[in-house]
Amino acid sequence: MSCVITLTTDFGYRDAYVAAMKGAILSIEPSATIVDITHDVPPQDILHGAFVLSAAFSYFPQGTVHVAVVDPGVGTDRLAIGVEWRGHRFVAPDNGVTSLALAAGADAPASPAGAAHEAYDGPLPAGAVAHELTDSRYHLADVSSTFHGRDIFAPVAAHLAAGVPLSRMGPAVSSVRRLGLASPSVDKDGTVRCAVIHVDGFGNLVTSARREHLSSGACEVEVGGRRIAGLSRSYGDGEGVLALWGSAGYLEVAVKNGNAARTLGVSRGDEVVITPCG
Amino acid sequence: MSCVITLTTDFGYRDAYVAAMKGAILSIEPSATIVDITHDVPPQDILHGAFVLSAAFSYFPQGTVHVAVVDPGVGTDRLAIGVEWRGHRFVAPDNGVTSLALAAGADAPASPAGAAHEAYDGPLPAGAVAHELTDSRYHLADVSSTFHGRDIFAPVAAHLAAGVPLSRMGPAVSSVRRLGLASPSVDKDGTVRCAVIHVDGFGNLVTSARREHLSSGACEVEVGGRRIAGLSRSYGDGEGVLALWGSAGYLEVAVKNGNAARTLGVSRGDEVVITPCG
Amino acid sequence: MSCVITLTTDFGYRDAYVAAMKGAILSIEPSATIVDITHDVPPQDILHGAFVLSAAFSYFPQGTVHVAVVDPGVGTDRLAIGVEWRGHRFVAPDNGVTSLALAAGADAPASPAGAAHEAYDGPLPAGAVAHELTDSRYHLADVSSTFHGRDIFAPVAAHLAAGVPLSRMGPAVSSVRRLGLASPSVDKDGTVRCAVIHVDGFGNLVTSARREHLSSGACEVEVGGRRIAGLSRSYGDGEGVLALWGSAGYLEVAVKNGNAARTLGVSRGDEVVITPCG
Repeated sequence: MSCVITLTTDFGYRDAYVAAMKGAILSIEPSATIVDITHDVPPQDILHGAFVLSAAFSYFPQGTVHVAVVDPGVGTDRLAIGVEWRGHRFVAPDNGVTSLALAAGADAPASPAGAAHEAYDGPLPAGAVAHELTDSRYHLADVSSTFHGRDIFAPVAAHLAAGVPLSRMGPAVSSVRRLGLASPSVDKDGTVRCAVIHVDGFGNLVTSARREHLSSGACEVEVGGRRIAGLSRSYGDGEGVLALWGSAGYLEVAVKNGNAARTLGVSRGDEVVITPCG
Repeated sequence: MSCVITLTTDFGYRDAYVAAMKGAILSIEPSATIVDITHDVPPQDILHGAFVLSAAFSYFPQGTVHVAVVDPGVGTDRLAIGVEWRGHRFVAPDNGVTSLALAAGADAPASPAGAAHEAYDGPLPAGAVAHELTDSRYHLADVSSTFHGRDIFAPVAAHLAAGVPLSRMGPAVSSVRRLGLASPSVDKDGTVRCAVIHVDGFGNLVTSARREHLSSGACEVEVGGRRIAGLSRSYGDGEGVLALWGSAGYLEVAVKNGNAARTLGVSRGDEVVITPCG
Repeated sequence: MSCVITLTTDFGYRDAYVAAMKGAILSIEPSATIVDITHDVPPQDILHGAFVLSAAFSYFPQGTVHVAVVDPGVGTDRLAIGVEWRGHRFVAPDNGVTSLALAAGADAPASPAGAAHEAYDGPLPAGAVAHELTDSRYHLADVSSTFHGRDIFAPVAAHLAAGVPLSRMGPAVSSVRRLGLASPSVDKDGTVRCAVIHVDGFGNLVTSARREHLSSGACEVEVGGRRIAGLSRSYGDGEGVLALWGSAGYLEVAVKNGNAARTLGVSRGDEVVITPCG
C-alpha cells in the first residue's frame, strides 16, 4: 500500500531544491505518492507555511507523512523533529511551522504574556508523540549544513512511509516550538478583536476569528477603515466587499471578483473588529 | 489499474486549496494518478482555464477524469456538472470552463447574435452525456458554500476514478453553458478576421484561426499595426516577428527569442486579420 | 516496477504545455512516476535549465529518465538526443541543456579559446553513450515543428521507461553540445577568479568555484565591491553577507534572512574573487 508524503516549503519552483527532496524520497521508498502542498511560502515565512499546512493536512489519508521545511535556522542548534498526532505524521524543523496544524487548525494556545509573535516552547496536543530526528541511519550519507530538507527531512519521511516507527528516529521530546499568535480577544459585549493571519492568492483576508468566538453571529466587520454589514454565504453572494466564513473555518473578508487586500490596503497582522448580533 | 485525474484551477500555488483537493481525492481513491494541468489561471478567468484545458486534455489516456475549477459563482445557483465525451470525463461548474474542450479544440459553436463574450446555454457535442452532480453520497460530508473544488468536484472525480458511473451522480442535463467566443469571420475574398484568444507564458499570441479557415494558406498576418509576410515553420525559423501554426492547432504570432505580446503591445481580445494567398 | 521520469522545461505553470507532455507519457507508460524538476526556467535560458538539472538529477533512483526541454531551436536542424550515463538517462535537444549534468555537477570541460558562453561540440563523459532520437516509432503520430517536448521527448522518455533500449531510438553519436562556461581560473598565489553561474530563488549567488579549486580554504570572498571574511557553516550562521559551501557543491554568497542578489546588486555572470588562506 503506497503512502502519501506531502511537502510544504519556501524553496519555490525554479530551483533544484524540491526535486532533490523528491529524488531522495523515491530513492528510499519508490512507491511513495508525493503531493506538493506549496513551495511558494515566502522565504523564511514560518507563519505562512504553518497556516497553509494547517488548512490542508486533515484532508489527506490517515498515515500521511507531512514534511514542512521553512527553515531559516538550518545548520544552527534548532532541533529536527517528527510528531505523530491523530493518524498524521509531521516532519519538520522545530520552529513552529507545524504548530498550527498541531492545534487542529484552531488558534494556537495563548502565548506567554509579552511573547506575542515570538515562537516559544509549548506542550504537545493531547495524544501527540514527538521525537528528535537524530539517528543518522535515516538520513542521507552526507548531511550538509545548508539543506536538511534533502539530507534529513526527506529521507526520514521516506523511511516513515516505508514503515520505520518514529520512535526509532531519535529520543522523545515533550514540548515543541509554537508560534506566538495573539488569539482573538472577546470584550464583555461580545466584540471580537482579531487579526488578519493570512492573505490568500485571491487577496482574501483570513482572520484568526473562528465560529466559537462568535456564538451569536457577526453583524458588522470592521477592517481597514471599512465597515461590512452582515455575512455573505459565498464569494459570489452580494456585491463589493464581503465578510464570510471561509473554507478553513476562519472569518474572511473578500471582494467579489476582486482582491480585498489591494482594495482595502490591508495586510497580514492588521486588526479586524467584529461586532456580534443582538 | 490506476486512473488519471487532472486538475485545472485558478487557486494558484501558494495556498492550501489545491492540496486539500488532492487530499480529498487520495482519501477516496488512493491509487489515482493526479496531474496538474495548471493552477495559475488568472483569478476568475474562465476563458483562460477553458483554453488550457482544451489544449491539454486529449493527450491523456482514455478514461481520464478532468477537474476544472474556475468558479466565481461557487455557492450561487450555478450547476455542478459532469460530462462524458470521447472517452474523457469532465467535472466542473457549469460556467463554460469545459466548453472549449467539448468543442474538441475547434471554435465553439457561434454564439447567439449580440451575445459575444457572454456565456450562453448550448447543446452538448454529439455523443456526449452530462449529469448534474447533486448526489451528496459522492461529496464530502460537510459541503461549504465557498470551496466546491474540495467538497464536491474532487470527491466526485475520485468516485468516478474508482468506477462509480456518472449517471449515478445526479440527473441528466441536455445543455451546458458555453463561452460566447466570436468565431473567426471569413470575407468573400477569403480574408479572415479573428482575435487573440490566449497569450501564453512566452508572450506568443494564440489566435482563434484554425487551418479550416485558411484552406489556401496565409500570405499576410496583420496584428497590432504590424504586417507579417508569410508563415514560419517554427519559433526558431526566421527573425523578429513571426506567424506560424502553433501546437494547439491555432495560428500564432511570436517573436524569435522574445515576447510578442510585449513587443507588439497586443493582448487577448485584440483583432488579427489574415490575408490568404492568391 | 514503476520508473521515474523527471521534467525540466521553460514552459511555465500557466499553459497546457507541461500537462500535454505528461498526458503523452501516461498514454504510453501509465505506471511512470512523473516528477517536475522545474518549469520556471526563464524562457530560452539553457544555462538555468542545465544548472538546475545538474543539481537535482543524482538524487533520483538509478534508471530515472530525465527530460529537459529548453529548446529555442525547436523545428530547426538541432538534434534530439538521448544519453545514458551512470545509470541515468537524459532526453533533450542537443543544445547543452544536459551538459552540466553530464559533467557530474563539476565544471564543464574548458571551452575552446574565444568560445566562452557559446555552446560547442564536446566529447561525452567516460562511460556515456548517446543516440539521436530519430526513430518515429517512438514519437507521437503527428510531430509538430513547434513542440517536440510533447511530440518527441515525452514519448521517447515513456518508451525508455517502459523498457525500450536507447540504442533503438536512432544512430549513436559521439559528441554533444556543451555550454561554454568559463571555468574558474586559479592564479599562482591561489587566488580563484570565478563567476556567479546561478541566482536561486532566495537570491543566493551560486559561483562556479568548487572545493577542488580551494584546497587550502577560503579566507576572503570579494563580490559586487564587497569583501566577506571567512566562510560560514550555514545560512543562519553569522550576520549580514555570508559566504559558504552550498548544497550543490559550489561556493555561495548569501544574506542571512535576506536576498544577496538584491542587496549586492549582483547578477549571473558577475565576477567573484576568492583569496585562499595562508
